[in-house]
Amino acid sequence: MRLTSYTDYALRTLMYCGLRRDGLATISEIAEAYGISRNHVVKIVHDLGRLGLLDTRRGKGGGIRLGRPPAEIRLGRLVALLEGARPLVECFDPHACHCPIVGVCRLQDVLAEAQQAFYDALDRYTLADLLESAVGLRERLGLSAAV
Amino acid sequence: MRLTSYTDYALRTLMYCGLRRDGLATISEIAEAYGISRNHVVKIVHDLGRLGLLDTRRGKGGGIRLGRPPAEIRLGRLVALLEGARPLVECFDPHACHCPIVGVCRLQDVLAEAQQAFYDALDRYTLADLLESAVGLRERLGLSAAV
Repeated sequence: MRLTSYTDYALRTLMYCGLRRDGLATISEIAEAYGISRNHVVKIVHDLGRLGLLDTRRGKGGGIRLGRPPAEIRLGRLVALLEGARPLVECFDPHACHCPIVGVCRLQDVLAEAQQAFYDALDRYTLADLLESAVGLRERLGLSAAV
Repeated sequence: MRLTSYTDYALRTLMYCGLRRDGLATISEIAEAYGISRNHVVKIVHDLGRLGLLDTRRGKGGGIRLGRPPAEIRLGRLVALLEGARPLVECFDPHACHCPIVGVCRLQDVLAEAQQAFYDALDRYTLADLLESAVGLRERLGLSAAV
C-alpha cells in the first residue's frame, strides 16, 4: 500500500506553512527545507491554493500561508482529496477494469471498506496535531523561533 | 492509495484456486481466465507456494490448489504479507528517507495507525467470504459447476 509522493509532499508543505508563524513562506524555501524538487512544490502549492488550503499572494510582500486554521484541516479528507482519482486496485476504476468477475466479486466491497477505515482513522487527526512538536520541527526545518 | 497489481492478481489467483472444486488449476488457465500475463501468474504462484498458501505439484496429474482452507486465510494478514516491503510513504523506509523532520514529525505515527486500521478492516474477512457467490464467479471464470 502506497501513497503518492505528491500526497506526502503536500502534507509536508502544509506543515511547513503551519510552522511559519510570521511572514509568508516561499516555494524555494519549502523545496530547500525538505530537499525536494521546486517543480513538485509549484504544483502542490497551485493545487492546494485551488482547494482553499493555501492562500498565495504574488508580488512584493507576497508568499504562501495556510488558507484555513490547522485545526480545521482533517487529515482523512485531505489525503482522500489528494489521492482521490487514484484507484486502490484496477476494479475501482470502471474505465480501466478488465476483470471478468467484477460485479459478482466481493473483493471490491471488502477493499472499499478497508480504504474507508484508513481515511476514518486519519480523520481523527487534523493538521494542528501534526504541529504539536513545533519547537523541534522548526529547528529541523531551519525556521528560527521568531519566524 | 494504491495496492500493487501483484497483490490484486495474487488475491484473484487464490480465489480462482478456491473456486476450482475438483482437479487442480494450472498457470495458463488462471492467466487466461483473468486475461493477465502468464509471467505474472508464475511469480505469484511461486511466492504463494513458498508462503504455504498454494500447494503446487509438478508433472502429470500435477497442478495448483489451495494450501490451506479458505476460512483460515485472513485477508489483512495476506495483503500485509504481499505488500509488506512497500512503504506507505518515504519515511516508512529508513534507508530511503531523507526528510529532515523524521523522528520529530507525528505524521509517520498517524499514517501507521491508519494503515493498521486498513489491515484490521480486511482481517474481518477471509478468502472464504470472497468465495460466497461461487456459482456466479465460476460462471464468469469459465469454470463449469462440475470443475
